[in-house]
Amino acid sequence: MTTEQSRNEEGIAKAVGILKQRFGEYAQTGLSIREQHGHTTTWLENQPPDIVVFPGSTAEVSEAVSIAAEHGVPVIPFGVGTSLEGHVNAPLGGVCLDLSRMDKVLAVHPEDLDCVVQPGITRKQLNEELRATGLFFPIDPGADATMGGMAATRASGTNAVRYGTMKDNILSLEVVLPDGRVIRTGQRARKSSAGYDLTRLFIGSEGTLGIITEITLKLHGIPEAMSSATCSFPTVDAACQAVIATIQMGVPVARIELLDALQVRAVNAYSKLTLPETPLLLLEFHGSAASVEEQAATFGEIAEDAGGTGFAWTVSPEERTRLWQARHDAYWAALGLRPGAKGISTDVCVPISRLADCVNATQARLTELGLEAPIVGHVGDGNFHTLLLIDMENPEEIATADAFVGWLNELAISMEGTCTGEHGIGQGKAKYLGKEIGEATEVLGAIKTAIDPQAIMNPGKII
Amino acid sequence: MTTEQSRNEEGIAKAVGILKQRFGEYAQTGLSIREQHGHTTTWLENQPPDIVVFPGSTAEVSEAVSIAAEHGVPVIPFGVGTSLEGHVNAPLGGVCLDLSRMDKVLAVHPEDLDCVVQPGITRKQLNEELRATGLFFPIDPGADATMGGMAATRASGTNAVRYGTMKDNILSLEVVLPDGRVIRTGQRARKSSAGYDLTRLFIGSEGTLGIITEITLKLHGIPEAMSSATCSFPTVDAACQAVIATIQMGVPVARIELLDALQVRAVNAYSKLTLPETPLLLLEFHGSAASVEEQAATFGEIAEDAGGTGFAWTVSPEERTRLWQARHDAYWAALGLRPGAKGISTDVCVPISRLADCVNATQARLTELGLEAPIVGHVGDGNFHTLLLIDMENPEEIATADAFVGWLNELAISMEGTCTGEHGIGQGKAKYLGKEIGEATEVLGAIKTAIDPQAIMNPGKII
Repeated sequence: MTTEQSRNEEGIAKAVGILKQRFGEYAQTGLSIREQHGHTTTWLENQPPDIVVFPGSTAEVSEAVSIAAEHGVPVIPFGVGTSLEGHVNAPLGGVCLDLSRMDKVLAVHPEDLDCVVQPGITRKQLNEELRATGLFFPIDPGADATMGGMAATRASGTNAVRYGTMKDNILSLEVVLPDGRVIRTGQRARKSSAGYDLTRLFIGSEGTLGIITEITLKLHGIPEAMSSATCSFPTVDAACQAVIATIQMGVPVARIELLDALQVRAVNAYSKLTLPETPLLLLEFHGSAASVEEQAATFGEIAEDAGGTGFAWTVSPEERTRLWQARHDAYWAALGLRPGAKGISTDVCVPISRLADCVNATQARLTELGLEAPIVGHVGDGNFHTLLLIDMENPEEIATADAFVGWLNELAISMEGTCTGEHGIGQGKAKYLGKEIGEATEVLGAIKTAIDPQAIMNPGKII
Repeated sequence: MTTEQSRNEEGIAKAVGILKQRFGEYAQTGLSIREQHGHTTTWLENQPPDIVVFPGSTAEVSEAVSIAAEHGVPVIPFGVGTSLEGHVNAPLGGVCLDLSRMDKVLAVHPEDLDCVVQPGITRKQLNEELRATGLFFPIDPGADATMGGMAATRASGTNAVRYGTMKDNILSLEVVLPDGRVIRTGQRARKSSAGYDLTRLFIGSEGTLGIITEITLKLHGIPEAMSSATCSFPTVDAACQAVIATIQMGVPVARIELLDALQVRAVNAYSKLTLPETPLLLLEFHGSAASVEEQAATFGEIAEDAGGTGFAWTVSPEERTRLWQARHDAYWAALGLRPGAKGISTDVCVPISRLADCVNATQARLTELGLEAPIVGHVGDGNFHTLLLIDMENPEEIATADAFVGWLNELAISMEGTCTGEHGIGQGKAKYLGKEIGEATEVLGAIKTAIDPQAIMNPGKII
């Protein structure tokens, strides 16, 4: 389905009719529900699907996909709609599959540290259900996203520095292919050298190769102890040097977050804090009681060497919450800088040696353009977000911000980095993918065509 | 290139002529060098290529592949020939690309904990070159394999339980495609959500999709301290219970190896040790001085609860070597059980909750069949190897062993495991892949055809 292609009106009409008959109340065509399922958090326009189907099982997903395939109609999977790059938009219309009814934990294997879930379960629901087992699923992208959505965008978040991303925490997938066939990408063993890594191919494929209907997740033991620490730094460079030294020392940091001076100022105002308005690092350590003390102390020494001030750490849960308040409140505090503005997030990720350069250049450019955008970073991975505060009624400002996003993505790519550390390509970043991976985009296209020859799966995303 | 296809004599003759002219002394056609490049460590017959080319650069790999592609001739990559499943055999003849001249470290980025290497460098060469940096590359499959070969088979080894497999330790690849084009699968950022995970697609593709010509590897700080421990157990079940409890507790074990009673008996005889001839666990812990003591002590308590005896641990390097001698000598000690026999290794991997069942059933079956085969396992991952000691002059014994391998692979698959935890599919396990991943093999085939439409890349492997 090339960008030149238009809506397949005839196919859509037929498929919608069949789906309504087949799925009854679980097939909805009202405008508001369709618009809600084309929800975007960017300046991209809302492009609703023609029908929203709520399948209750893999068999029903397969059936709905088969009906769409037979009529050459697009299929767009939907979790809870927290994606940031227009992933759930339906530029050519078609069938949205809302997977919220498929939200069960199908099995927990405590001895194997894994579980099998349906794609519609959210991160918080899952951890609630796991509570009695002493195990947890660590990946935390901020939003209470679904496991299916997180798998489809290769999500990560604040503790990827310790636990990796979705690609590192999935053992296998069940997937409904574009023609309705159901496959399993692998077994439940912890590792395998059996053929091409289909599991990783579908993770991050954003619904463009098939619909994920079951996920076997790795779990981790809830740490015996946790400690938290914070430290202010005179410059972003000094903070980054402390991060690099900490990681080089092999300190197994669980989270290491950076707030820039503007973000600290925002949090001071919003949460009535009195932090020095300079770059701030926030850390969390997981392990035994003795090791989390040792880790925090080691970081304290490194931070002091790097010019850090106000180093504080604690193991008490209440104190930990207080120390991390600046991070927990970051998003709403940032919006508070400019009431009424919309927050649009960038997502570049660069080698950590280039992080300070990239952040400094970003701040300078924002000042030059007159844009207000505090910065929060998962600095252990070299990934940071500028939250552009935009007046959506002002087309000129949107154009300036859009140009800034392009400039930043290209800067990160020139530093051997990526335009997206964790949000995915979607519609919004499709134009940067070629700049990032060059001729490899042709291999992506060949794979897409091989698996989805009709190009009905989530058209207009990635490719 | 289907299995029915035969040698493309005309194309081969032309390609060999052009390659000889182009590569001069770096293109060899002598029988002994060709046979050495079709080396196998199994009972598979030797299938030599028609010519062995020694390219010195990515450009030369691209040129050689283009010449082969133009004439529809197979291309087989070769590292140092340590693969175990006939990966380097040339069933339809063709061009072997020996990558041993491409053995350089191209860049080391200590701040980013990564380096860029050519595929022909071996594991030990790499760690020798990294020594001054305080960093190391952890994956250790036993053999001193090349990084290209390890990437191509998704190798792992004794410390995968802590550091993961090759899929977890590669940031990006440069690959020569089957038509000679050169692509890069990703950037050097620690994580990315930019499009399909081509890096993971080529890792484990065994040369069937392209030739890996550059690898960006994650590195790790050499641990401040290491401790080693050993403990005997009355049964395999008791040893596995100790392993499960240790991992559930979140002890970050670096290595955890099992020897079965027969393997211990072999080592006692070979290395003049006096270990109890019951299942033995050997462990290694990495971390700060305090944490490696704590980890060993925690394991000691768990082992005692599980019925372990003779628990011993140390941080001294000499003592560590002594404690692990039974593991270091395992292969030669096993061969010593039956002088003159060849050792053929199986490679199943199951969920750890099924490991004791799988090992016990394996031992019973071996006894039933009259086969001698000590067992060594990377038990933290549920992966174990039986080393079948076979008289290669006895076709009946080979047939019995071959049937046993099939039985074991199917047993592992029935336990939600895999026929190969780390050796790869190659020729030897191709017939089990369909049993393991079912209809997903069709997706593998579609990808293969999309990327290598002439089917010239390492034919007869995986697919």
